[in-house]
Amino acid sequence: MHNMLIAQSGGPSPAINASLAGALARAMASDEINRVFGALNGLEGLLKRQIIDLGAQIETVKDFDLLTHTPAMALGSCRFKLPRQANDIYHQVLQIFKDYQVGYFFYIGGNDSMDTADRLSAFFKAQGADIKCIGIPKTVDNDLVHTDHTPGFGSAARFVAASFSEIMIDSSVYATPSVTIVEVMGRNAGWLTASSVLARAHGFTGPHLIYLPEVPFDPAAFLKKVDEKLACETNVLVAVSEGVRLADGSYVNKAGTGKVDGFGHRALGGVAAVLEAMVCDNLHGGKLKTRSVEPSVLQRVGMHLASGTDLDEARQVGAVAVDAALAGHTGMMVGIQRVSNNPYLVRTELVPLSAVANHERTVPLSWICDDGTNVTEEMVQYLRPLFRGETHMFFEDGLPHFFKLDKTRLVQPQDL
Amino acid sequence: MHNMLIAQSGGPSPAINASLAGALARAMASDEINRVFGALNGLEGLLKRQIIDLGAQIETVKDFDLLTHTPAMALGSCRFKLPRQANDIYHQVLQIFKDYQVGYFFYIGGNDSMDTADRLSAFFKAQGADIKCIGIPKTVDNDLVHTDHTPGFGSAARFVAASFSEIMIDSSVYATPSVTIVEVMGRNAGWLTASSVLARAHGFTGPHLIYLPEVPFDPAAFLKKVDEKLACETNVLVAVSEGVRLADGSYVNKAGTGKVDGFGHRALGGVAAVLEAMVCDNLHGGKLKTRSVEPSVLQRVGMHLASGTDLDEARQVGAVAVDAALAGHTGMMVGIQRVSNNPYLVRTELVPLSAVANHERTVPLSWICDDGTNVTEEMVQYLRPLFRGETHMFFEDGLPHFFKLDKTRLVQPQDL
Repeated sequence: MHNMLIAQSGGPSPAINASLAGALARAMASDEINRVFGALNGLEGLLKRQIIDLGAQIETVKDFDLLTHTPAMALGSCRFKLPRQANDIYHQVLQIFKDYQVGYFFYIGGNDSMDTADRLSAFFKAQGADIKCIGIPKTVDNDLVHTDHTPGFGSAARFVAASFSEIMIDSSVYATPSVTIVEVMGRNAGWLTASSVLARAHGFTGPHLIYLPEVPFDPAAFLKKVDEKLACETNVLVAVSEGVRLADGSYVNKAGTGKVDGFGHRALGGVAAVLEAMVCDNLHGGKLKTRSVEPSVLQRVGMHLASGTDLDEARQVGAVAVDAALAGHTGMMVGIQRVSNNPYLVRTELVPLSAVANHERTVPLSWICDDGTNVTEEMVQYLRPLFRGETHMFFEDGLPHFFKLDKTRLVQPQDL
Repeated sequence: MHNMLIAQSGGPSPAINASLAGALARAMASDEINRVFGALNGLEGLLKRQIIDLGAQIETVKDFDLLTHTPAMALGSCRFKLPRQANDIYHQVLQIFKDYQVGYFFYIGGNDSMDTADRLSAFFKAQGADIKCIGIPKTVDNDLVHTDHTPGFGSAARFVAASFSEIMIDSSVYATPSVTIVEVMGRNAGWLTASSVLARAHGFTGPHLIYLPEVPFDPAAFLKKVDEKLACETNVLVAVSEGVRLADGSYVNKAGTGKVDGFGHRALGGVAAVLEAMVCDNLHGGKLKTRSVEPSVLQRVGMHLASGTDLDEARQVGAVAVDAALAGHTGMMVGIQRVSNNPYLVRTELVPLSAVANHERTVPLSWICDDGTNVTEEMVQYLRPLFRGETHMFFEDGLPHFFKLDKTRLVQPQDL
């Protein structure tokens, strides 16, 4: 009987531990899996043999629930990219897996992690080693192909939409005209930024302009649009992706580099701050109240606004990954296919990792309208079901209780 | 029988509408109050006779609950300061109150609003007009004197503490050393920044350094402290108040002004960005991973993390204000006194507005320790009860449902 090893990689999301919990629960219910190991900090920790016994640390129903409702990676993460050609590192991984009698390997992550899982799967096959490798998708950016959406996205999108509702209320308390610009994560794909559209409800009309990275950003057209909106709205709310680029392909916030502050240090600024300065300096003779807001990493770890649908699906995808490995699959990722939208119904599907790795799914241009300042009803329909359902995070005295693994209790091969 | 008029002023908070709901509910249960009016945008809208019939728009239990769980000011706000000497404006307010048969006036706000209510109360007395004026405190800054804490603070503090928990998890997923600096609201008073201390729980050790505006900020000492912390923590988390000042009294983030970005615009940057650049340029040869986060206005409108205790107290304070006016008091504010800490018990108390207006309550220096980089156990005990209790915000399809008043249906004196 083989052991299983699971690891997490890439950037944080609110749902990545839900997939870990799902995979672990499925494995513990199986007679074909002996022990469940976790590698710390993805491949980076694996190569240092930083391996813990997950099954020994997550036992009770409360443990599973706490883990599911803890954002980011309980096991830690890395940004480690395997070389394209199998080299020493590949052999080291194989040796470690042999030492720990690992027959099933699961990598939870985004694009790069799917690539890693794919390469290892091919290498193990070529070496005649019976180690199944399955990828479990996660990314708040929602930019993986061959899956309707990625676990983690719905929760981050819910945080974005709810925050826009709140920021809109904040920005509209005064009777004086104002422009508020909010910067949303997503370097190349505008899915998260588009999610701000859901804040338009119950008589609230913002965000009034939505800028995705899929469309080149034109500063002059932007200022004109803001001015037009100010003619009919006292308080204009703008959503902008951190990754918007000028027509020449350069990032808008790159234009902001080279600044030096009063201490002589280089200053850092996001795109929202750049647009704020633009509005401030060009409209209404500098007298317009402007503000930029950058919710930053809160978007990807805002567990208190996680989507119940997202966490459920993330857990399910983790469990299906274990099913797939037990059924003999390798080099596959668990994707989500939408069966119907209303009522919302999805099913999981195995997709070859090679078809996913190194591809990026951006927002279709046909879902962007109004000269690149808005999204269509198709986008709204696509997004709406992903937000549904509340979560049951644990609070103690009103404060979040998150799960923490003991990372000091490493397992040695001789302990097996 | 007289009418009552209520208005909101100053900056947003998650609890200010709860006080509005409490006052309205109490008034509607009274035989001594005829109609309940709301002035839009505080004194500014009042002077323009922008007055709506609140009682006609908030009727059902659901209306009251929705209003209670809607952040910022349903009536809108202003930053209007009455001149010290009674002038034309005072007479205009009196005339409007006479036209609308107002016998009770309530102003929900911070320092300046208490001053306004105080001046109007004295003026009405001097004019022999029987109009009772009561102040209802609110401010996320918690900087009013003669009250243990202010409605709105507990909710904002809960948002800050919970966000620090989440940001800490985000910042610690990688095995590489990092410094994350989070900027918290509070220009002169460090209460909100101090609240980040509550994130230290369940094995999480951050924030590791906490800088309040009450203590002068020394850049060299800061860099030394960060370096010391990096010797024992891989991922250092720093909480800093937006209002920290250098020994000469100048704001630390003012040092960042004068920057010009690539478009030739002035760049705006918070204190966290300034400290980030400091760390980046001075420690570990510029190779240290640093990040600044500025949750900005989300701190004061983050209704999804509002404290149940805070909203309950805010509603109670609103109701007691109406009781006080009906009992014949004027020129008073409703304060909160803490009777006991464990179990937590408070009572309300009337405080002369004149004793509150134009004073500011900052954090006692005796509650700040470790060379101005931490807060004491007294602070923790003070803060803990204010976070308790969750709220029951309304979600539809996973998104917040907030209350919105119809501000177009203005009441005219001839309608009375």
